[in-house]
Amino acid sequence: MRTLHVDLGERSYPIFIGADLLGRRDCFSPYIAGRQVAIVTNQTVAPLYLQRLCDTLAGYGVTPIILPDGEAFKNWETLQLIFDGLLAARHDRRTTVIALGGGVIGDMAGFAAACYQRGVDFIQVPTTLLSQVDSSVGGKTGINHPLGKNMIGAFYQPKAVVIDTTTLATLPARELSAGLAEVIKYGLICDEPFLCWLEQHIEALRALDAEAISEAVERSCAAKARVVNADERETGVRATLNLGHTFGHAIETEMGYGVWLHGEAVAAGTLMALEMSHRLGWIDERARNRGIRLLQRAGLPVVPPQEMGPEEFLRHMAVDKKVLDGQLRLVLLRQLGEAVVTADYPRDILEATLRTDYAALVRQIGSE
Amino acid sequence: MRTLHVDLGERSYPIFIGADLLGRRDCFSPYIAGRQVAIVTNQTVAPLYLQRLCDTLAGYGVTPIILPDGEAFKNWETLQLIFDGLLAARHDRRTTVIALGGGVIGDMAGFAAACYQRGVDFIQVPTTLLSQVDSSVGGKTGINHPLGKNMIGAFYQPKAVVIDTTTLATLPARELSAGLAEVIKYGLICDEPFLCWLEQHIEALRALDAEAISEAVERSCAAKARVVNADERETGVRATLNLGHTFGHAIETEMGYGVWLHGEAVAAGTLMALEMSHRLGWIDERARNRGIRLLQRAGLPVVPPQEMGPEEFLRHMAVDKKVLDGQLRLVLLRQLGEAVVTADYPRDILEATLRTDYAALVRQIGSE
Repeated sequence: MRTLHVDLGERSYPIFIGADLLGRRDCFSPYIAGRQVAIVTNQTVAPLYLQRLCDTLAGYGVTPIILPDGEAFKNWETLQLIFDGLLAARHDRRTTVIALGGGVIGDMAGFAAACYQRGVDFIQVPTTLLSQVDSSVGGKTGINHPLGKNMIGAFYQPKAVVIDTTTLATLPARELSAGLAEVIKYGLICDEPFLCWLEQHIEALRALDAEAISEAVERSCAAKARVVNADERETGVRATLNLGHTFGHAIETEMGYGVWLHGEAVAAGTLMALEMSHRLGWIDERARNRGIRLLQRAGLPVVPPQEMGPEEFLRHMAVDKKVLDGQLRLVLLRQLGEAVVTADYPRDILEATLRTDYAALVRQIGSE
Repeated sequence: MRTLHVDLGERSYPIFIGADLLGRRDCFSPYIAGRQVAIVTNQTVAPLYLQRLCDTLAGYGVTPIILPDGEAFKNWETLQLIFDGLLAARHDRRTTVIALGGGVIGDMAGFAAACYQRGVDFIQVPTTLLSQVDSSVGGKTGINHPLGKNMIGAFYQPKAVVIDTTTLATLPARELSAGLAEVIKYGLICDEPFLCWLEQHIEALRALDAEAISEAVERSCAAKARVVNADERETGVRATLNLGHTFGHAIETEMGYGVWLHGEAVAAGTLMALEMSHRLGWIDERARNRGIRLLQRAGLPVVPPQEMGPEEFLRHMAVDKKVLDGQLRLVLLRQLGEAVVTADYPRDILEATLRTDYAALVRQIGSE
């Protein structure tokens, strides 16, 4: 078992990474203050892992709360099911909410924990690669609004994050690839050596090689923890974690939540950020193509939806949380391994980026 | 203008108290970081004071968001109207939400500010006596759930609180009395000299004597600020502020939100807390009757609903936020001016308190 510490003063917490941690009571009990526990999970994950975790937590008063599965349910109505479950079982403010599932479960259970009786304890047990390397670290919680993704939420830190890498065995290949999009992102924004390592191990990761997976999860979490340490509330450098996300959120919103997986939309958005960084003269064609090829090798769809032009993108990007006083800030690459957040770019380069024929570009790179 | 400072480290904020502060731009502009402002108010307050505040904020991009009036609307559906208004007008994360109204508006606007894009700035402009002395100080925000009052919410501090005492001129007498219930509470729990002052000035307060009102608001806010300073997240002494609230919440929930005003339910609950403290032998009959008479002189209904017996009370009290691991903690009086929070009382004394014939008790005190 590997252990990382996210250092946030009195809100610090550990991240445990390893095989079969769902069965390790010592990963949980030091972080449960009361006698009541609610396990929030979904209809896909519950049959696979809920009983296991319940067995590990024998002796606590455990309330399972099983939600429908998918980003399309990341809304108030589903959140309400968590509150209903907590209140029906009379959970008091010393209860602990455990999120068992992917990023949607983590975001919703975390937000419910932040709001229930104005805040109760919370433990993350991410079961997808995406949530293991991304959404379980950093304290962002929330739900979607019909007019924008993650518009309603809170910064709320867990007491602990327990990453059982064995759960990836049941993850569909498409979701594994979506998780790799975020792993690759860490290499692109702040860790060029990790990018090289990924180029050498991408097939091992797709084959769920245990050692490679643990290494990738640990390096990704460590990268994110470093950035979050430096900027908990996203006033500065933390925004670089959103490489590809501003474009990607526009894709998710336009196509309808859940049609594109989050990581897939981020991959297409990252392609656009690579292209824009290249058009600005910051990275050369070789570097751009290197990023695109790695995303492709991870099994990701990298071409944005053909039906989306500049108008569709700009409409959604205007309500992005990175808009400040009307200025749209974007995460772009100065070089591979170094991202910046900036609103200082020529408008026509953004528009040219949005008009680019990505299908043709990707075909060309694939044929090189 | 009087100024109090609530000292909470980096979340400290000022409270301004005085006549006609709605027109004082200098009370607002230092606390507005961006160019966008949303004024959240309701259909009762908007015709009275919205234009005045809009004039004061000329030059900002102001979005008024007008909600239906009443505790019955303190729910998710109404909260959603705030998010809809913010998103429709494309407010970004540097926006400031201003709550213009009573406690319901303050609680909902504050919770919306806590959640919108994971937290934006917030200014309180309480226009009822209750919200001026209670809900605008302390950072509690939230909404009701069908199974419990204030069950969903956040601790979230405003950047400033602006108390324009002139707004009380349009407050119905019933709501003025409801506010006095909370004012009297501060005397009962922590300030016996203030209780004596109130006994001398209760008629002046009901007649809206300007000097008496400012004095009462300032002393109440100062008392609450002292308690909140000592215990921001309600792990200890802060819970004494809930004198009468555990019984009162049961009344509000059983009767349906909005049938009893919050302050009215608190007054009846305070009567019950006085009676229970007396039954425990902590305060004598004279002290109990002194508290009851002051509540009566404030124009408050002090007799709990006749249709509520021990069963109805206990059912609702079991989900109170002060329940910890199944133990119901109550706020009781050691003496007038000294409250304690305790789960250490004989169960039969609680039940006797719930069975007491309060109508008869109050008749008897009134005839003395």
